[in-house]
Amino acid sequence: MKILVVGAAGMVGRKLVASLLARGHLGGRDIEALILADIVAPETPKGFLSAKTLAIDLSAPGSAAALVADRPDVIFHLAAIVSGEAEADFDKGYRINLDGTRHLLEAIRQAGQAAPYRPRLVFTSSIAVFGEPLPAEIPDEFMLTPLTSYGTQKAIGELLLADYSRRGFVDGIGIRLPTIAIRPGKPNKAASGFFSGIIREPLAGIEAVLPVSEDVRHWFASPRAAVAFLLQAAEMDTAPLGQRRSLTMPGLAATVGEEIAALRRVAGDKAVALIRHEPDPVIAGIVAGWPQAFTANRARALGFSAEHSFDEIIRAHVDDELGSKLR
Amino acid sequence: MKILVVGAAGMVGRKLVASLLARGHLGGRDIEALILADIVAPETPKGFLSAKTLAIDLSAPGSAAALVADRPDVIFHLAAIVSGEAEADFDKGYRINLDGTRHLLEAIRQAGQAAPYRPRLVFTSSIAVFGEPLPAEIPDEFMLTPLTSYGTQKAIGELLLADYSRRGFVDGIGIRLPTIAIRPGKPNKAASGFFSGIIREPLAGIEAVLPVSEDVRHWFASPRAAVAFLLQAAEMDTAPLGQRRSLTMPGLAATVGEEIAALRRVAGDKAVALIRHEPDPVIAGIVAGWPQAFTANRARALGFSAEHSFDEIIRAHVDDELGSKLR
Repeated sequence: MKILVVGAAGMVGRKLVASLLARGHLGGRDIEALILADIVAPETPKGFLSAKTLAIDLSAPGSAAALVADRPDVIFHLAAIVSGEAEADFDKGYRINLDGTRHLLEAIRQAGQAAPYRPRLVFTSSIAVFGEPLPAEIPDEFMLTPLTSYGTQKAIGELLLADYSRRGFVDGIGIRLPTIAIRPGKPNKAASGFFSGIIREPLAGIEAVLPVSEDVRHWFASPRAAVAFLLQAAEMDTAPLGQRRSLTMPGLAATVGEEIAALRRVAGDKAVALIRHEPDPVIAGIVAGWPQAFTANRARALGFSAEHSFDEIIRAHVDDELGSKLR
Repeated sequence: MKILVVGAAGMVGRKLVASLLARGHLGGRDIEALILADIVAPETPKGFLSAKTLAIDLSAPGSAAALVADRPDVIFHLAAIVSGEAEADFDKGYRINLDGTRHLLEAIRQAGQAAPYRPRLVFTSSIAVFGEPLPAEIPDEFMLTPLTSYGTQKAIGELLLADYSRRGFVDGIGIRLPTIAIRPGKPNKAASGFFSGIIREPLAGIEAVLPVSEDVRHWFASPRAAVAFLLQAAEMDTAPLGQRRSLTMPGLAATVGEEIAALRRVAGDKAVALIRHEPDPVIAGIVAGWPQAFTANRARALGFSAEHSFDEIIRAHVDDELGSKLR
């Protein structure tokens, strides 16, 4: 089977590709070809001959048609302008996150009008489709109430995915990812960055800033869990979804205080001592509008699962990023 | 003040324009100019000098900019390809209902970048944003689950309206209209047509076909109530809406049997005898997926109201369309 990954150069995309290469099959069929696309050319996988990498702007005319020209059986659509940038650059966010997604759906539909074609499309949505006021635990039937342009674009993507699926143009499934922690790599300027930073930096012996109070509660899953969600979404029977094609993924509801307690258990007091409390009312204000917990009942009933403690999330980071070694 | 009505030639649009002309003011200010647009040129209002009529395709390049060139203070956006046509012609539905709405929002934003401009935009959405499985009475926080392309396009319009409002480009409010009954005029092929037809035709001495059983329950308001919703949405303070800019309008939950009982009370057995029961499983199947009732608590708390009995709905039709005369 042929697999297309749009957004293959991003953090989750790279981990997904590594996992696909390691397993060699998907949905019981051997992976024969990989098409990896992103705005910058993704790395060419080593030791896998039939891989094509493309540097492509999904919003440019013809780009989407070029991506589906080889008629991939499974498409992972992970590409997006992130929240902060979509808020800072209104046009760019709509161009990539809305028009790009629509172009991809249209290219699939057009390919299907030439000859029968109905690929599985796994679309990464986000808990950013929800915004305050929210119940403490958000049920699966709660309305989408985005408070960012990014969240709006993801919510629109979910609606398009459902309509194109209902019409039979694509076999779509949308998965709303929790906040991914621990994100590997350098600190970034995302408002959510500290959730990872207060664990990642101390584990590396570096000081980290905590801009909110310890009672802030949020919804997490590891990068490893995110890849497992994507693989399951690609392989599962979509019939039980009915017309409701997007699912809130399971996650772990944890407070910053619980994060810190887990860090203490895994890496001791000297790691925790590297967290510097430096309240930032702007970040605290942004984070206050974010969802804290979900039931995720539909996804759990379909077998999706994430970590059950922040200790597990930290250990996944130590295993996957630090070669299982603590300093 | 200047008012733009997009979709002014439609049933609700014509009634709205008539009401604006009759009252002469909106939000405490005199109406100085009317711009009436539709895909076919709307009728020029009699006895009102400063009215401009435009035959315009909202999805064509430059159309939306031309509409807002005079910087109207209030814009009513009623234009849409209806449900059946948007389902039959996928491209046309998206072009008008999604791209057209987006073009209008973009034209407003662009005008605002040239010089400060933030008009009130009243967007007509629909209960078609909801589809089964649904609770018997749908709360205001229930997710949008459209089962038609039309409903999908309206749900996307709501999301865009909220994001453009949040960013300060427009002062938007979306109102989800109930099924409008009694629709005046000829029977049409809409699946919902019988809800009006079984009242309208017998009142005119003509036979009407009822394709579903009498226990089918649905959500109604009169054309008169719809116009009142639009006027209130144009005049009200939008601050209490917060970031949730769309409201399910109040309506009357009634069964077909209750409709018929009301017809009997208003026009007697001879009218009811003109209803021919002719079950149509296709129409019954479509209607089974439609919402039956809403709490509409947010809109009611803001003072929106509709009819409380089907007798009232029939009397509104007799008064407004039949010169208050029964045959």
